[in-house]
Amino acid sequence: PAVPPVAAVLPAGGSGERLGGATPKQFCAVQGRPLVSYTVRAMERIGWISDIIVVVSPENIETMKSIIEKYGHKRVTVVKGGITRHRSIFNGLKVFAENEFSNHLLQKPEVVIIHDAVRPFVEEDILSKVVMAAKEHGAAGAIRPLVSTVIASAADGCLDHSLERARYRASEMPQAFLFDIIYEAYQQCTDYDLDYGTECLHLALKYCKTNAKLVEGTADLWKVTYKRDLYAAESIIKDNLSQQVCVITDVKEVVAQVSSLLHESLQSQIKVEAISTSLSKNDSHLQNILSGQCYNFVCVTDKKCAIQETQQLVDVLEKSNIPLLYPVVLILVHLDASENISFSIGMEELTRLKKFAREVKKKNILVYGLLIQYK
Amino acid sequence: PAVPPVAAVLPAGGSGERLGGATPKQFCAVQGRPLVSYTVRAMERIGWISDIIVVVSPENIETMKSIIEKYGHKRVTVVKGGITRHRSIFNGLKVFAENEFSNHLLQKPEVVIIHDAVRPFVEEDILSKVVMAAKEHGAAGAIRPLVSTVIASAADGCLDHSLERARYRASEMPQAFLFDIIYEAYQQCTDYDLDYGTECLHLALKYCKTNAKLVEGTADLWKVTYKRDLYAAESIIKDNLSQQVCVITDVKEVVAQVSSLLHESLQSQIKVEAISTSLSKNDSHLQNILSGQCYNFVCVTDKKCAIQETQQLVDVLEKSNIPLLYPVVLILVHLDASENISFSIGMEELTRLKKFAREVKKKNILVYGLLIQYK
Repeated sequence: PAVPPVAAVLPAGGSGERLGGATPKQFCAVQGRPLVSYTVRAMERIGWISDIIVVVSPENIETMKSIIEKYGHKRVTVVKGGITRHRSIFNGLKVFAENEFSNHLLQKPEVVIIHDAVRPFVEEDILSKVVMAAKEHGAAGAIRPLVSTVIASAADGCLDHSLERARYRASEMPQAFLFDIIYEAYQQCTDYDLDYGTECLHLALKYCKTNAKLVEGTADLWKVTYKRDLYAAESIIKDNLSQQVCVITDVKEVVAQVSSLLHESLQSQIKVEAISTSLSKNDSHLQNILSGQCYNFVCVTDKKCAIQETQQLVDVLEKSNIPLLYPVVLILVHLDASENISFSIGMEELTRLKKFAREVKKKNILVYGLLIQYK
Repeated sequence: PAVPPVAAVLPAGGSGERLGGATPKQFCAVQGRPLVSYTVRAMERIGWISDIIVVVSPENIETMKSIIEKYGHKRVTVVKGGITRHRSIFNGLKVFAENEFSNHLLQKPEVVIIHDAVRPFVEEDILSKVVMAAKEHGAAGAIRPLVSTVIASAADGCLDHSLERARYRASEMPQAFLFDIIYEAYQQCTDYDLDYGTECLHLALKYCKTNAKLVEGTADLWKVTYKRDLYAAESIIKDNLSQQVCVITDVKEVVAQVSSLLHESLQSQIKVEAISTSLSKNDSHLQNILSGQCYNFVCVTDKKCAIQETQQLVDVLEKSNIPLLYPVVLILVHLDASENISFSIGMEELTRLKKFAREVKKKNILVYGLLIQYK
């Protein structure tokens, strides 16, 4: 079934007091880049999300705008948050419904996703599941098993009772709602709800009689809450950066054979995507990989002049905005099987490549050349 | 008030299925050392815990014994676990009460701590708090605020209701009990409890009418559950290793002045402990630091022959077992203010130090020398 028109609201107004640092966690640098930028990126790569609303506290609006500028985020609107989480989310929703933000009233979506700015590892699969469930049930939210037993304390600070773990779940993000339902709920709810509540599913139930569909989420939905979570996020991102390589080859037989061997020997250690194609700007499989998390490319060719093709790949990479986030590594392997070519001609090719590499390095793309001559 | 006779039981029998790896998380290497060894170490450094019982599944008994051997753990008894968490803890308690383990019946403690092997960052402060509360109330456990809202799901997979976050807490470890109470509870409880329960506080309440005292814990009580938690543990341990330095100085005026300047300039970046003392094996402040997490020492002296003193410090370090865990870095700064000494005499001293450093490197202690001559 087709995904309905969808927008996303990312509350990013938290002060991060549990983190124990001065910088709110959503703006903390992880591998040099603010956490919120990873979360925006996770939303942005999903084509069917039309608008992304990031709600930040007034003092961070300029910071957020400069992050959008620096990392080339698209389809993002920055909205001023309120003093509580619920008030911030409500402000985010108003962008689609009220003329307050008159020069910028966005197209009202059928379904709106609400997702924390501090949950950067959200995948398309869970997003589409909650969206489809919200379309059917009016509201939906990701849940996870409880990690610890939950207990109720009595007034004297002693144990009153413990909850049976199997009956309960942790409510996580993303959540999704029919826009009209969640907007209605926010309009109806009391100041007490807005000031002390935290759970959107609760508002939909209380004010719109909508029992949210609960969707089992994966472990990567966790929220960056404490400093240790920033450490974990950093390690996961490092892992992602170095764990995938894309091998691009010509369709010619000998080249295909070499890259198939390369593929085999690499894949015991790293996730390998293989593309057999002449490079062309319109290759949709390549486009898909670029919208994923691949930062490493090996390009095997036997063309005399490989630079032209490499230039094409660099163009595709640039357009994808991938090098804005991290340096991309591109290794050009030139196979030379011609009988009577002299060594110096291959070297000439490498020298030209060196000059080319110097140029594209400015664009955060690191090109390496490898010349293999054989008979 | 004096701490009563205390033992600790560490259930370490989990299969780590949530981690998604073959190795149970308690045996996963963190900076090259199994997680459980950090937790044992955290208990072991606390003098008032007389016995540490580690309960592991039958197939891991040899692994656990070799860990104890390799890292020089003391006061540890390895016990064979049952097929569930509660059965394992019960087995751990039996060591103090039943003749089943006849050649090894340990002195029954007044209070027993129960703590997960996968919570390595537990501090003495919270341990003593739960122990004292258990002595008074019969049972006590550490709690933490909930990170996510907890919800109850209905049979149809939809939201039934969400819990008011402020009324509930996550039950964490450590917990502590009067031995007789928790042992009685385990003897009384049903097979259903033993097979499906997880919460010791619940057993004490249900079978001994003991309402546990709840003690607010710190954020470092978290449990290594997922792979990201291993990443976090690794980063925290790395941080701990490099974030504390101990500056040891002579009491002489000029030397004390230099090290006070060093102290000042270091402390903006790193936690600095300063000790003004002649090195002696019985220095209790130094002993305290060694039982903590300090792996970096700067020793400032103006003695002609500093090696003898350094040897003393190395002896103290060795006895503390600190270098068994990580390499210790020891920088010897020799201040030379004598008017008419030749440069070559200082160099001679450094040469002797170099030889000394080669020797102690085998003991995992890295000695560096710095000679400063001034007028």
